[in-house]
Amino acid sequence: MQRKIYLNMHSREEAQQLFWTRFENSKLGTETVPAYQARERISAGPVFARFSSPSFHSAAMDGLAVRAEETFGATDEVPLTLDIEHGQAVMINTGFPLPPEKNAVIMIENVLLSDDGAKGVIRAPVYPWQHVRKVGEDIVATELLFPTGHQFRAPDIGALLAAGIGTVQVRCKPRVAIIPTGNELVRLEDYPKLLPVGKIVESNSGVLAALVAKAGGEVTVSPIIRDDFESITTHLQAMVESDADLVIINAGSSAGSADYTVRIIEQLGEVLVHGITIMPGKPTILGVVNNKPVVGLPGYPVSAIIAMEQLVMPLLARWQGIFLEPPAMIKATLARDLPSRAGIEEFRRMIVGRIGTDFIAVPLKQGAGAITTLTRANAILRIDAASEGEKAGQPMELDLLTPLPEVERTILCTGSHDLCLDLLNDYLRRQQPAFPLASTHVGSLGGIMALKKGMCHLAGSHLLDPEDGSYNTSYVRKHLADKDIRIVTLVHREQGFIVPRGNPRGIATIHDLFQDDLRFINRQAGSGTRVLLDYELDRHDLDPDGIKGYEEDEYTHMAVAVAVLSGKVDVGLGIKSAARALELDFVPLVEERYDLLIPGAVFDTPMIRRVLEVINLDGFKQAVELLGGYSTRETGQLVGLD
Amino acid sequence: MQRKIYLNMHSREEAQQLFWTRFENSKLGTETVPAYQARERISAGPVFARFSSPSFHSAAMDGLAVRAEETFGATDEVPLTLDIEHGQAVMINTGFPLPPEKNAVIMIENVLLSDDGAKGVIRAPVYPWQHVRKVGEDIVATELLFPTGHQFRAPDIGALLAAGIGTVQVRCKPRVAIIPTGNELVRLEDYPKLLPVGKIVESNSGVLAALVAKAGGEVTVSPIIRDDFESITTHLQAMVESDADLVIINAGSSAGSADYTVRIIEQLGEVLVHGITIMPGKPTILGVVNNKPVVGLPGYPVSAIIAMEQLVMPLLARWQGIFLEPPAMIKATLARDLPSRAGIEEFRRMIVGRIGTDFIAVPLKQGAGAITTLTRANAILRIDAASEGEKAGQPMELDLLTPLPEVERTILCTGSHDLCLDLLNDYLRRQQPAFPLASTHVGSLGGIMALKKGMCHLAGSHLLDPEDGSYNTSYVRKHLADKDIRIVTLVHREQGFIVPRGNPRGIATIHDLFQDDLRFINRQAGSGTRVLLDYELDRHDLDPDGIKGYEEDEYTHMAVAVAVLSGKVDVGLGIKSAARALELDFVPLVEERYDLLIPGAVFDTPMIRRVLEVINLDGFKQAVELLGGYSTRETGQLVGLD
Repeated sequence: MQRKIYLNMHSREEAQQLFWTRFENSKLGTETVPAYQARERISAGPVFARFSSPSFHSAAMDGLAVRAEETFGATDEVPLTLDIEHGQAVMINTGFPLPPEKNAVIMIENVLLSDDGAKGVIRAPVYPWQHVRKVGEDIVATELLFPTGHQFRAPDIGALLAAGIGTVQVRCKPRVAIIPTGNELVRLEDYPKLLPVGKIVESNSGVLAALVAKAGGEVTVSPIIRDDFESITTHLQAMVESDADLVIINAGSSAGSADYTVRIIEQLGEVLVHGITIMPGKPTILGVVNNKPVVGLPGYPVSAIIAMEQLVMPLLARWQGIFLEPPAMIKATLARDLPSRAGIEEFRRMIVGRIGTDFIAVPLKQGAGAITTLTRANAILRIDAASEGEKAGQPMELDLLTPLPEVERTILCTGSHDLCLDLLNDYLRRQQPAFPLASTHVGSLGGIMALKKGMCHLAGSHLLDPEDGSYNTSYVRKHLADKDIRIVTLVHREQGFIVPRGNPRGIATIHDLFQDDLRFINRQAGSGTRVLLDYELDRHDLDPDGIKGYEEDEYTHMAVAVAVLSGKVDVGLGIKSAARALELDFVPLVEERYDLLIPGAVFDTPMIRRVLEVINLDGFKQAVELLGGYSTRETGQLVGLD
Repeated sequence: MQRKIYLNMHSREEAQQLFWTRFENSKLGTETVPAYQARERISAGPVFARFSSPSFHSAAMDGLAVRAEETFGATDEVPLTLDIEHGQAVMINTGFPLPPEKNAVIMIENVLLSDDGAKGVIRAPVYPWQHVRKVGEDIVATELLFPTGHQFRAPDIGALLAAGIGTVQVRCKPRVAIIPTGNELVRLEDYPKLLPVGKIVESNSGVLAALVAKAGGEVTVSPIIRDDFESITTHLQAMVESDADLVIINAGSSAGSADYTVRIIEQLGEVLVHGITIMPGKPTILGVVNNKPVVGLPGYPVSAIIAMEQLVMPLLARWQGIFLEPPAMIKATLARDLPSRAGIEEFRRMIVGRIGTDFIAVPLKQGAGAITTLTRANAILRIDAASEGEKAGQPMELDLLTPLPEVERTILCTGSHDLCLDLLNDYLRRQQPAFPLASTHVGSLGGIMALKKGMCHLAGSHLLDPEDGSYNTSYVRKHLADKDIRIVTLVHREQGFIVPRGNPRGIATIHDLFQDDLRFINRQAGSGTRVLLDYELDRHDLDPDGIKGYEEDEYTHMAVAVAVLSGKVDVGLGIKSAARALELDFVPLVEERYDLLIPGAVFDTPMIRRVLEVINLDGFKQAVELLGGYSTRETGQLVGLD
């Protein structure tokens, strides 16, 4: 193992410049496709019309075809009778060829027909070629219909066919070969039920393939190659000699003991860039072998995606001569401080929602290993390399990942975590239009702080007042005195001890947390569950110092349950549904009320009305009760604050 | 034949409301697809994680795995030596499982290794679980990964696979059956060389199929059905009983003698709407047969597309529960007055470009039969039903059809028409980035007027000054005295008589235009060609009244050539390349200079620099000369105005 040494570190702009310039003259081949399959393809040369359209003079209206000269003089006072029977005027439908010698059409609405249809009376003349579509009016044979490099849209297909063009020469789609490498990687198909310890599902190739498709390319994915210098070398050589236009190795791009990629590219060709000052995405390699671009993408999924979007997709677009539309921008206010390392351009995944007239941006966690930070995000904040971070309350420009109207319907939910929120989100998303519920979990007190700053639409809370046993109301009165806050009960739920199946340590009461060698996991300070634990300890005159693990904490019920499942700890405090979800055992301690705290300012908006509708649905309540440990007896009820 | 009677006329909003509400409960089926093919598909139900990710505690960095407790106390002053040889610390790569009993990783950068690798010295402690990716840190098994109705993006595929989900249940794509009807329609495959008179290539089904694909649907296109009540009825019945979710009949939606659609829908089901107050698109029918939506779309291609986009595509999106992104909007200044009929909502096809800081919108022609108005447009102006039109100079909101940066690079070219402009456009589009040349033809004097109002980037002009035989300069001095205008020669070109092959009327000089029964076609007033004709007539003391057809005019050289080719006239005045393009004969009259007039304010912009680069290319000049009738001896030269 060696220290990480990046051979050739560059900023994003420098890396883009170096990489794109090097391959700007790579040419894609051309192929012929039927016109009706041309949508989104790009013309490989100028397209000239073969037929004129229309190809004959035709009626532009239903009516009478006439010689215009024979209608001159017709007025309201001196109507003119046209002889249809003997062909002076001829009935004609829109689109039909004009009879020889006729040069205009009188709209049928302007003709008074005799009962037998033999005569037509008109009260105004027509001028020559009126209501006639002349030959070539739309398209003239031989004219340039589409220039080189034109990306065909749906209407273009109509123009192609009308101009007699059944097939078009288009640029080939760029072909990308993806080589997944890593001893730890397995195919999901081989382990559909359970993953062996130390193994990871190879998932990046699926994501990268989808990104290539999005950029208009085609993909070949190799089998997973083991971390072996010879194997990777042989395979890379083969892919570079294939018809692929660009080769991606994933991963092996950092400098760990099995990270061969950079050495292999160096041996077979040239390393242009090793290391880019972006986060995620730093350990990216840009190289060239056989005059073809070879890219070593990082293994962490978010890193691989960011590097792919910043470096590879724009190159694929350039080759095709198309324009990859940049993401729409939005100006939003940061909900929290975002420290950032100077010298690194950071791509932070964010959730943006609109509160009143302002857009609020809530950061998701940072880890490049967490693909869900990207799947849950609806925007990306780029923090400039020069910046040491951004301050809460500051307006920032963000790149949107979803259409603006979806962002505008996004419900920012924070505070305490409960599984019913996922269910609520699912119900909200089944409606038309959908109001996505985007939750971040900061504990009940964190939710109250967010409400104080006006940074959320609703906050889940289950804060017990030890004085009177009430929930939430006294906290709202104390911390949000100057705010108009409505409290709506979501559920009553059981809190208790989450323990391994069979409850091997025989946990029954709070006193059992003091067993010798028993490892406990706590929830973070400010969470309702932590408040509950402290209340129960206090009530029984117990000293938290006697609990091993009281100082270690997790942020969600599910994380506590996972800690128990993985054997990291013996017990944690949490909700029954979390225990049930992971098939753990549960020892009930208390039932508590979990409410939604909602600012009055947004209470009467469509999004909150929809939330209240959904939680009052019988179907929703039944689904909640099925999770286990919940009662919906007061669900949807407004809680008085007095 | 009957007068057009719309049974059930509605505004667009009313029609949408009626139609969408009626079918809002239609449910699409579901199907299972592999996760790696899920991009853009929509989840049919909630998706829950099967695996946790990571599924084991793993190193988040390359380094030494340790028990954090054993590192406490290490400082710069009191470094700590870890025993690697005997397993107190274990070398580990990113992503590898943490050995049992270890609970933290020290980054390799922070370790000083002994030469034999048996010992490692550290100068700072780590805290428990530092640089460790804990089980479920990203995804916890059983948690909600994606709610119902989620449209999968590329990163989502990574989350699915990482969570052990190899296949997902998605909503079926909506299936649309398209029935082309019309005796005049033929398939291009059947007449690839030449279209019989009175026949039209059936092109709408290709466009509609592409629009359905764009909206996420799938299509079946029927063979062309003749305009026969029984045939259409039988076929519609079959399609309605098929697995199609929606059936489109095209056309037969107006009220001509062969327009059966409305009667057939009425007989088989119910007509909800017949006639919508939009233009194009008025004769649209919305109906229901067998509880399925049946839509009669107009035959004119632009009408069919507008009706499809306004009525059908949003319904397909609603069924899928997805959001069809509305077109981006742009505020642009109208270049010309746009009268419009009150009571009709009009969709005008426009070309928008940026001049300085303003966007300028130039209207294309109106005809719903001209598909090229839509293929050439980069924006649509909706003129409200209440409006009687919009005034030139007014700022208007338009819907963009192409990405904004492409609009920003669009070169607004107007004035006189020349075939070299198409060639120039093609060359400009081959460059990276492309600067599309969007031409509208208003004649040389029209171009000068556009320059006066600041409504174009360049104008083609070949205005002869009869006084001194000069081109363009005296006109610029007279009409654009207060403007800084640069004149760059594009080409010299031959003007002359365009005549049928073999020159049957033996046209040799301008005197031959006065032959008995000879039919002439003129160019519009203000065109340089018209000025040239008048100059030549004057020079020979000839009276235009003696030319039959002097009062009839066309707007382009190609239109004049088409008039000759179709036998409508015997001769016209125009450029040699137009005659050659249609394989007509040409009798040269004079050589003239054709210049580009360019405002000084845009002369030094990237777009004009690119134009000047291109016209100076040898390849471009050779291509121009190949068109015939051109000399490039002064191409690219600046013409002095003094």
